[in-house]
Amino acid sequence: MTLSCDLESNRVNELRDLLNLISPKIIDYVSKADPNSSTYEASSLGTFHNPLDLKKKLVTSDLESAISTDGLKNEEKIAASGSSLDKVIDDVLSLSVNTWNPGFLDKLYASNNPIGVISDLILSILNTNSHVYTVSPVLSVLENYIGHKYASLIFTDNVETCGGLTFSGGSWSNVTSLQIARSLKFPETKETGNAGHKFAVYTSKHSHYSVEKAAILLGIGSKNVFKVKINEDGEMDVKSLEETIQSTLKDGYTPLYINATAGTTVFGSYDPFTEIAAIAKKYDIWFHIDGSWGGNVVFSQAHRYKLKGSELANSFTTNPHKMLGVPTTCSFLLLPHVGHFQKAMSLSAPYLFHGNNDDEENFDLADGTMGCGRRADSFKFYMAWLYYGTNGFEERVDHAFKISKYFIDKIYEISGFELVLGSREKLPACLQVCFYYKPEHFTELDHTKVTRYISRKLHSQGKYLVDYSPNPTSQDGKGEFFRVVFNSPILTNKVIDDLVESIVAAGKEVK
Amino acid sequence: MTLSCDLESNRVNELRDLLNLISPKIIDYVSKADPNSSTYEASSLGTFHNPLDLKKKLVTSDLESAISTDGLKNEEKIAASGSSLDKVIDDVLSLSVNTWNPGFLDKLYASNNPIGVISDLILSILNTNSHVYTVSPVLSVLENYIGHKYASLIFTDNVETCGGLTFSGGSWSNVTSLQIARSLKFPETKETGNAGHKFAVYTSKHSHYSVEKAAILLGIGSKNVFKVKINEDGEMDVKSLEETIQSTLKDGYTPLYINATAGTTVFGSYDPFTEIAAIAKKYDIWFHIDGSWGGNVVFSQAHRYKLKGSELANSFTTNPHKMLGVPTTCSFLLLPHVGHFQKAMSLSAPYLFHGNNDDEENFDLADGTMGCGRRADSFKFYMAWLYYGTNGFEERVDHAFKISKYFIDKIYEISGFELVLGSREKLPACLQVCFYYKPEHFTELDHTKVTRYISRKLHSQGKYLVDYSPNPTSQDGKGEFFRVVFNSPILTNKVIDDLVESIVAAGKEVK
Repeated sequence: MTLSCDLESNRVNELRDLLNLISPKIIDYVSKADPNSSTYEASSLGTFHNPLDLKKKLVTSDLESAISTDGLKNEEKIAASGSSLDKVIDDVLSLSVNTWNPGFLDKLYASNNPIGVISDLILSILNTNSHVYTVSPVLSVLENYIGHKYASLIFTDNVETCGGLTFSGGSWSNVTSLQIARSLKFPETKETGNAGHKFAVYTSKHSHYSVEKAAILLGIGSKNVFKVKINEDGEMDVKSLEETIQSTLKDGYTPLYINATAGTTVFGSYDPFTEIAAIAKKYDIWFHIDGSWGGNVVFSQAHRYKLKGSELANSFTTNPHKMLGVPTTCSFLLLPHVGHFQKAMSLSAPYLFHGNNDDEENFDLADGTMGCGRRADSFKFYMAWLYYGTNGFEERVDHAFKISKYFIDKIYEISGFELVLGSREKLPACLQVCFYYKPEHFTELDHTKVTRYISRKLHSQGKYLVDYSPNPTSQDGKGEFFRVVFNSPILTNKVIDDLVESIVAAGKEVK
Repeated sequence: MTLSCDLESNRVNELRDLLNLISPKIIDYVSKADPNSSTYEASSLGTFHNPLDLKKKLVTSDLESAISTDGLKNEEKIAASGSSLDKVIDDVLSLSVNTWNPGFLDKLYASNNPIGVISDLILSILNTNSHVYTVSPVLSVLENYIGHKYASLIFTDNVETCGGLTFSGGSWSNVTSLQIARSLKFPETKETGNAGHKFAVYTSKHSHYSVEKAAILLGIGSKNVFKVKINEDGEMDVKSLEETIQSTLKDGYTPLYINATAGTTVFGSYDPFTEIAAIAKKYDIWFHIDGSWGGNVVFSQAHRYKLKGSELANSFTTNPHKMLGVPTTCSFLLLPHVGHFQKAMSLSAPYLFHGNNDDEENFDLADGTMGCGRRADSFKFYMAWLYYGTNGFEERVDHAFKISKYFIDKIYEISGFELVLGSREKLPACLQVCFYYKPEHFTELDHTKVTRYISRKLHSQGKYLVDYSPNPTSQDGKGEFFRVVFNSPILTNKVIDDLVESIVAAGKEVK
């Protein structure tokens, strides 16, 4: 009897052929979006497509039929120009947002870069799981190494014991920090749950929604998340924090967790960590910092002062996939005591974790998480740090701050532009700028119409994708404003000049 | 003034050079591990390295120095043979477990395949976030499409309304299902948490640890997870389930959630879903199926009978990265009503989600999750399904069952081998086989020593990586047994014959 299967019987040639098919496509895709390339097209960012139209375009009856039967694999010349697979790849690339275009200013992440692509490719080839050491020896060792190195930048008082693990995004790192807080401060909750506790969580009104979602997920509930006032720069008001804590204590709450933010989502503000740490200590509350966005200013000698006091935190979230250009997704939760991951999380699961000797470090990394399977996102960060070095990361962060500052100075001189929050002198807090633009002829108080018109117009030109938002706290009737993120080494003053001109030009058309 | 930065000023050439550096390496890496290739080396799986030795080897002082200063980027001929980066990549590949080797039988996932690598590469180039449609139009539309198509295989009574989203592993899909259950059945818990409820969760003694971790994370607590007895085939005993529910009701519990398993982690057993669904309905309890491992038998006409009754579930976890060979990580949570993701999860976060008209489908996918940023794992599944087709997936699953059956029949004839659970006639339940092997000269009742010796010996030869485990429930003193997973199209009877011979040969050396 012979048992064999054809599906992967020709892996080597198939891989070679498909790599040969796709390599020129991706080089071309990046070239089109690169101002330094001879084939640069400013409009290569791509334009908006209605979702249902796009679905019709992508999910053709031919493809539906292939999926439901034999697939494309056996098509003759599958890896040749003109094959069905060739067309699928072309459509996926051309109808997506080309984030390599310098006009991608919409979100807190930027494009990938060459070493990032290579890292993803290596992870794909290794195709393993960084949950237990046996199957991911290299990736586990490197996560252990780089997590410690990263954490030691923040936890300068605990450089021996600190460490970090990755989670699949800042939200999950924040969720995990809340779980660790509850588990270490109230260990009985692992067995008995929240019963008998009336936990309170404190965070600023400008913090990310994941803090509220974390409290919901952990069975604490959104009503027990107390949203502390912010000051005129969008930073947590520490006096209000203490008043809130005192008020909840009177109401019989158990204060569990304070979240402070390093780089708020909308405005980029940094909360006053030293003062918050003192309050956390005074009332014996876990002190977490969500630095998903702004935590990586730690690489900049010029800007790391914004993190002052973060060495006093009990946990710290930071995302290399945002400010450092590591491929999405890459988020770390850092702790002053790396052993606390396991202490807070471990269950006995002897079919998976075969145990260490007491004096050994843990390299079965999933044992310190609430999950099991893990893609080794840490490897992408390791490779980026090795490639660019600490100095390269610093240069990246500093350049982005300079570009943001340049934009602020520029719009400050042009009639119709107005900063939403904070003063020109203090800004940029982080790498985004929030502003209104009102063309001379536009007279409504509410900016929503003009903001949306201009942002859609820019997108329709395929040159710029910028975001807009209402103010999370103010009810001044001024409506939605622009939030533009300057977070890429490929940005130049030339791009900024053109962006401002494009906004002004689009503004003239608003009716 | 000119503001520019050199870090990514040469992206196109750098990407081309690095792709040229790495492409032959990965072709070579796959070739070495492929029995159909002329350069095949049976020992290419790799051997065990002590973690601290490995760390010394990988984290050299030269690399530490590069990380702390200027990195490797500016090294002359960075993309040439012999450069520091070249050596790093070689070390990472050669010291890792080569999962493309047919001897990788340790975990529930297998190697990647060519289309999987290409999918990862495209995701890396797109480098976007499938949280909101604006930045990931193609990936969001394809997730919506393929999630629906996938769910319609399970929820045959709800093909119009069903759908699915990806989460970063089966554990997180399971966590999410418990959150959806609580949120839909007791909506006030979103605001007020678990206070006032004494929730009970039911799952079998052989279910995955993520159910217990989910209950801990959600503030329910591990003591309130009731582990139901299993029968002689490792399937949940439904009579015990009902007795347990009745007993918890008497104790004042609110029954919240039953988890049944399609393919348990150790033994691969399928719980009796139809009977469990009836119990869930009778007591008005959410009925979840964790099909992380065994859910994809849905693609096999021969084996999908194991899922009978799963159309009655309220939620279903299934991981294409396990049985279907999609690159890690790819896990779906499927629901009969896709709108329930948002209903259960949504908060108002107007700075991110700008809202749909009421009659529009949701394409801002993160709004239906407890997270924010998401890598579009669904795209890898879409590409695999398109490439292999439904028939290819069926062939893959069926072949793996045949190989497992071949192994069982083979060891049944050889003295010293013994199946741990279940009968030869009924097995394989799923694609793993759990067995003891006792060499003739070995007389101890406890198999742990011989199991560990043989598995380490096989690993030391670089040919086979197999797992071992204690019995999750039995205390018969027989100790640890082998769990070997046959889940790859490259497996043949020849590999199985050699594996069995290798076990017998290693067994002779045990002292």
